[in-house]
Amino acid sequence: MVPRYTPKDFETLWSSATRYATWLEVELAACEAMEDEGLVPKGTAAAIRAKDLKLDPERIETIERTTKHDVIAFLTHVEELAGADARWLHRGMTSSDVLDTSLAMLLVRATDAILERLDGFLKALERRAREHAKTPMIGRSHGIFAEPVTFGIVLAGHLAEMKRAKRRLLAARAEIAVGKIAGAVGTYAHLSPELERKALAKLGLVPETVSTQVVARDRHAAFFTALAVVAAGMERLATNVRHWQRTEVGEAEEHFTVGQKGSSAMPHKRNPILSENLCGLARIVRGYATPALENVALWHERDISHSSVERYIAPDATATLAFMLDRARGLVDNLVVYPENMKKNLERAGSLFFSEAVLLALVEKGKPRQEAYVFVQRNAMKAFHGEGTFRANLEADADVMALLSKEEIARCFDLDHALRFAETIVERALSEG
Amino acid sequence: MVPRYTPKDFETLWSSATRYATWLEVELAACEAMEDEGLVPKGTAAAIRAKDLKLDPERIETIERTTKHDVIAFLTHVEELAGADARWLHRGMTSSDVLDTSLAMLLVRATDAILERLDGFLKALERRAREHAKTPMIGRSHGIFAEPVTFGIVLAGHLAEMKRAKRRLLAARAEIAVGKIAGAVGTYAHLSPELERKALAKLGLVPETVSTQVVARDRHAAFFTALAVVAAGMERLATNVRHWQRTEVGEAEEHFTVGQKGSSAMPHKRNPILSENLCGLARIVRGYATPALENVALWHERDISHSSVERYIAPDATATLAFMLDRARGLVDNLVVYPENMKKNLERAGSLFFSEAVLLALVEKGKPRQEAYVFVQRNAMKAFHGEGTFRANLEADADVMALLSKEEIARCFDLDHALRFAETIVERALSEG
Amino acid sequence: MVPRYTPKDFETLWSSATRYATWLEVELAACEAMEDEGLVPKGTAAAIRAKDLKLDPERIETIERTTKHDVIAFLTHVEELAGADARWLHRGMTSSDVLDTSLAMLLVRATDAILERLDGFLKALERRAREHAKTPMIGRSHGIFAEPVTFGIVLAGHLAEMKRAKRRLLAARAEIAVGKIAGAVGTYAHLSPELERKALAKLGLVPETVSTQVVARDRHAAFFTALAVVAAGMERLATNVRHWQRTEVGEAEEHFTVGQKGSSAMPHKRNPILSENLCGLARIVRGYATPALENVALWHERDISHSSVERYIAPDATATLAFMLDRARGLVDNLVVYPENMKKNLERAGSLFFSEAVLLALVEKGKPRQEAYVFVQRNAMKAFHGEGTFRANLEADADVMALLSKEEIARCFDLDHALRFAETIVERALSEG
Amino acid sequence: MVPRYTPKDFETLWSSATRYATWLEVELAACEAMEDEGLVPKGTAAAIRAKDLKLDPERIETIERTTKHDVIAFLTHVEELAGADARWLHRGMTSSDVLDTSLAMLLVRATDAILERLDGFLKALERRAREHAKTPMIGRSHGIFAEPVTFGIVLAGHLAEMKRAKRRLLAARAEIAVGKIAGAVGTYAHLSPELERKALAKLGLVPETVSTQVVARDRHAAFFTALAVVAAGMERLATNVRHWQRTEVGEAEEHFTVGQKGSSAMPHKRNPILSENLCGLARIVRGYATPALENVALWHERDISHSSVERYIAPDATATLAFMLDRARGLVDNLVVYPENMKKNLERAGSLFFSEAVLLALVEKGKPRQEAYVFVQRNAMKAFHGEGTFRANLEADADVMALLSKEEIARCFDLDHALRFAETIVERALSEG
Repeated sequence: MVPRYTPKDFETLWSSATRYATWLEVELAACEAMEDEGLVPKGTAAAIRAKDLKLDPERIETIERTTKHDVIAFLTHVEELAGADARWLHRGMTSSDVLDTSLAMLLVRATDAILERLDGFLKALERRAREHAKTPMIGRSHGIFAEPVTFGIVLAGHLAEMKRAKRRLLAARAEIAVGKIAGAVGTYAHLSPELERKALAKLGLVPETVSTQVVARDRHAAFFTALAVVAAGMERLATNVRHWQRTEVGEAEEHFTVGQKGSSAMPHKRNPILSENLCGLARIVRGYATPALENVALWHERDISHSSVERYIAPDATATLAFMLDRARGLVDNLVVYPENMKKNLERAGSLFFSEAVLLALVEKGKPRQEAYVFVQRNAMKAFHGEGTFRANLEADADVMALLSKEEIARCFDLDHALRFAETIVERALSEG
Repeated sequence: MVPRYTPKDFETLWSSATRYATWLEVELAACEAMEDEGLVPKGTAAAIRAKDLKLDPERIETIERTTKHDVIAFLTHVEELAGADARWLHRGMTSSDVLDTSLAMLLVRATDAILERLDGFLKALERRAREHAKTPMIGRSHGIFAEPVTFGIVLAGHLAEMKRAKRRLLAARAEIAVGKIAGAVGTYAHLSPELERKALAKLGLVPETVSTQVVARDRHAAFFTALAVVAAGMERLATNVRHWQRTEVGEAEEHFTVGQKGSSAMPHKRNPILSENLCGLARIVRGYATPALENVALWHERDISHSSVERYIAPDATATLAFMLDRARGLVDNLVVYPENMKKNLERAGSLFFSEAVLLALVEKGKPRQEAYVFVQRNAMKAFHGEGTFRANLEADADVMALLSKEEIARCFDLDHALRFAETIVERALSEG
Repeated sequence: MVPRYTPKDFETLWSSATRYATWLEVELAACEAMEDEGLVPKGTAAAIRAKDLKLDPERIETIERTTKHDVIAFLTHVEELAGADARWLHRGMTSSDVLDTSLAMLLVRATDAILERLDGFLKALERRAREHAKTPMIGRSHGIFAEPVTFGIVLAGHLAEMKRAKRRLLAARAEIAVGKIAGAVGTYAHLSPELERKALAKLGLVPETVSTQVVARDRHAAFFTALAVVAAGMERLATNVRHWQRTEVGEAEEHFTVGQKGSSAMPHKRNPILSENLCGLARIVRGYATPALENVALWHERDISHSSVERYIAPDATATLAFMLDRARGLVDNLVVYPENMKKNLERAGSLFFSEAVLLALVEKGKPRQEAYVFVQRNAMKAFHGEGTFRANLEADADVMALLSKEEIARCFDLDHALRFAETIVERALSEG
Repeated sequence: MVPRYTPKDFETLWSSATRYATWLEVELAACEAMEDEGLVPKGTAAAIRAKDLKLDPERIETIERTTKHDVIAFLTHVEELAGADARWLHRGMTSSDVLDTSLAMLLVRATDAILERLDGFLKALERRAREHAKTPMIGRSHGIFAEPVTFGIVLAGHLAEMKRAKRRLLAARAEIAVGKIAGAVGTYAHLSPELERKALAKLGLVPETVSTQVVARDRHAAFFTALAVVAAGMERLATNVRHWQRTEVGEAEEHFTVGQKGSSAMPHKRNPILSENLCGLARIVRGYATPALENVALWHERDISHSSVERYIAPDATATLAFMLDRARGLVDNLVVYPENMKKNLERAGSLFFSEAVLLALVEKGKPRQEAYVFVQRNAMKAFHGEGTFRANLEADADVMALLSKEEIARCFDLDHALRFAETIVERALSEG
């Protein structure tokens, strides 16, 4: 984990201490279920809980250096602390019962922490989308001026994408909220499906339909690819902020705090560094999708090749995405918007974006579309190259005037009309579940 | 598209002819909706439909060489064939209204064709899982003999994974069953949300919540990553078949047809080439996930960088996955299973897999787990290295016999007991929705 | 292969006809080497060559449907055409001797066709870099105006990157110009190293150091990752063109041909579609790097999982890169450059880019850097927000004037001085090997 | 960085302390070059060096929280410690001059530490390849018994691949041993090419041909993709070890240390966990290739999106690869090889691998290849299904005996002959540069 991009709660969540504590939670939940089933003396788990064990990660790692097996090292340490009762722990279980169930719990917690942040980000997007529902700006396709939109519509587009992100994260959470207490190769040789169901329920999980030694890794692949899609959505927003903040565009700008310095050489510079950072981090989260997909095809009842991969990507992908959401929320909340510059750019477009309205008016008068296109193009092009305004050029074009009156042309040049659905569109994104 | 890996229906689906036909469907559905809204004379679409246009892909491509714009070339050609009525087509629309709506239709059809194949594959898995629910085999973790499973349980695991694949494909289908008839930058400048809703409903689609010039590409990223997860599941099955067919293992084998030759040099060879092929194809489908994710962050209201990517991955990823499903179904349907070899391997395991039962029996007698582990290990290791059988060694070990009677040891060596939940597990996969 | 993005020569290169013809070349070269070694009657290859066989791809594929083995089908067909002499072909060889040697030949030819295109692209970059060595433009970091550069320096940067691309392609060519005539598992059981050396030399290849059944796939992984790096370099250039062509920037523009249409709705639009297309295609070529890397870890002496992968990526990656190079050369050759707009943008920067010179002048007068930074920042910021010019503000700042004379300030505001190394830099890129 | 997979020297190399120390080295080297050029008073660097500054990473990070700019924070801290002389540092430089030159130094050191480990790994491979040059084992294609090889040939194949890895790493080192002291946008506005050359030479680097604000990122993409290819080679070796260690194969085994435990449930298990771990780690290193490739297309003279990516992948990819090499060397050095099991498996192959020799003998007698194939196949298949031995079957086949004498058949069944080139092949890998 890169400390700079790791929120504090994720540092805790993915620490050794939390990992071992979660393993103990799993062992105790399984123990209680075994007590219910009569496989283990009643009160065993309670007795161990009562001892309030202080697990020592360093001690466990010392033991592991001999056993070369982490769960055995953990159990040895628990036995050191808890004494005889501990011999009932892990009865009939395999390491992966602990490891995979624990991983599910940690991923669920990570997802919940991500979802909470996403809700904050959604609120920021909602507020700013509503605020700018009617702030006109020039829409751009291919980076070239196209027709007008409003800044609120643009933000609503990002909002709708992030609401989809939420639905995908909820689906991803369900994919991995799945544990396994089914023994060495998933056959419950010394356990039972009922016991598993009870133990997992205590931990907020459901059983894997058919486990091998492990929970199937297609679930995790689906989870990590979902994170990658969410990150890509933030990359899109961040890319747009970078465009808006370009010197030549100047339509919106990241908040610049007092004392912040843009450049060691150029004091006046204000750079969209938060957004550029989000773009880079999206590459990282995306990069973890492929190893997760490569983890699926484990051999037979499992091999352990997935484990090292998950030691990198489970902490890094979730923490980085959480960091990105915090950063994106702040970015949107504090984004400095310049409606006056939007207006200036819109005016620079020289009304050329009304060309389609003119085209349609000509077609309505019976002109075949491709011929009408030629009429519009020649007048638009003239204006584009600085010769007259588009509207004046049209009014001076005999072919055009043979079909349209000045009034009819005027009706084509109406910004309010062009944007009459702006609030409807923004509302659609706001009201979506 | 690689002809060798392209099912016939996908060749047709992704042909120029189908693409242009779909564009025309979109234009006519939009035209009808415009007629409803009074924007276009009633009967326009019907009149064009009545002409039963024979679109000529080559002619369109000839025009495109001049216009460098595919939709304009298409419309020009439609006007050539349909005459004056055609001028009403595409009114107020932008190219992407046609392209993205058409892409949605084609991806939906592709997904339906994939789902149909998946159903066939599920049936094959169900049949074989049921057939072998009680066929015992040695389970393997790390490629090393572990405890017994049944071949049915293994297949049920793949079945459960492929049922998850189906749920993911259905979700992916919903993600991309979304069109857009909203004009140049998604503002309905010359259209309306109502018109869009009606037009898309005719085509089996719903409108994008907030479109830019295009339908948002996070949807497609979610779609293509879902395909990659499904492919990875087949890679897991294929990898297992490759293991089962190994000369040393010999537990199952791909069907070898009459006349088929395994090698140009070694006539007796029967190679798991279908399964190896599935592994390779899974890499291809997985490889397309990343470009799809990179397509999300389009600039402003859109750039066209995603288009070339989709010309590769939309046909290739869907056709390849469909091909894989056909191949996987045949593979499972015709898989030659050797229960006698499974039994032989199980016996080679020398009952060592009962070690856990012994371990548990010792723990139940009050032995701390780590000490019991040592007792079991020394007797297992002896047997493992060819010195006596595991059971005989245990019976000759004074420490063990101090705790367990011969009868208690016998109870530990019971295969039926170890596999008593096999049918329950298989049933769980079969009954899952 | 996507016809739209496949140059004609690559269509031919990767056709069935060429593939089978290359197989025959390999068989005949091996046959001649065997004649030299006395393993095959002298004159066998010559006799077969004399028959000028017309291989029929369809016939081969018909046979393959029975044999399920491509090389056996090919050999059967050759025997149909060439008669008895053909029985000497393939003596002691394995299919992969033919397939991998042939693949090497095809990849070498593809690389040569790519290198030839790259040379054309380099020439275009050289010409334009030289042409604009002294054309000033504002440099931008983070999309924000920074200090001046020249357009020639920028192009020289791309030139230098593409010269590195050439070196990488030459290294990649050497990686895969490696064949194998070593028999079933690479042991020369019925052949010899000397025979292999001779046969491959005829085909312009060298032997694999240690082959298994195949040439090692790390070579191909190195090859395809090299293509991905080259494509990424073109993506950088294309991204820059997209920025330059933005409406607000207007510094350079893709050539727009007569008849070309920018938009079906907005006739005046000129979109950087070639550059956007290059960005998309770079994603495709990059996407093929991962499957190539996944192909390396074949099992034992080989499995055939790599083969299906290579049927996609060998044609697609090479043809797409060749197409990209053609497109990039045309893009650069015909790029419409607007030095006057570059000048306008430079002036809009309001001389703020001279801030560093002022900072250095203050430091030279003994001011600590961080304090000098504050002096410069406050005057730059005022100008940046429209209050006075930067130079006037400095001259009105008592702290600054206490350290610098007006003459000293004037010396800081000298564009020619700032760009005095422009030609040196461009020359450095031009003269590099 | 994952502590478990990070060698100690890489923990140090990528620490904050080392990073800031390297920045200081860059600043002082540049300062000395400036003294040479008369831009800074003679003795400035020496005076600062004499103070032996104790940089405090925490203090720098505290300052950065205000400035939001790491290099400015660093310089501020240096000024705190070094006093007035420090104002000469960084004269005319931009942050990236420090950052990129420092990154080059760190990557060079990382590569050197990797190369040293690779040399150790090569030695281990050489020793074991030589040791087993003549140890016969059955070669396998598709996991199916093919023809004999020797274990030494197999190891020589991995050796040859790792020697190629070394050449690739040396080329990758040259790609990134490139720094930049060229100012804000690479124009040497307040510096000079000569000054840059001198400063970088002190640091073991050469100048970028044409820098923007940064060193071009295609170099880093080439570097990280090279690491991925090297990792893939280790994945191939590790995959083979996993196969050899399979229970059914048993030809080689990872060293199992005293006290090590294979499973928490099955005491006798010895799992190839080092090799499985190497496979997982290869996925991680491969996964970093794509973000590195996505980093290439920075905007204009640079954006900072690459920076966050490199904070993950520069430490993680290099440290993980170094860890893998340590592990792979230990794996090979201590690999427990079972030649007797290799022999047993070879015998299980029932001489079927001599089928090709028989085929060739028949062809030499004038039988067309495809007919000879049928003769061989029927006798091989019988033996394969347990009916007689291959040799006996041939001798009982009238068609075969019509062409071959018993003596001629005997000559086909000669293992030493089949492996006569084994030492030649191993020697070829050993002697290669």
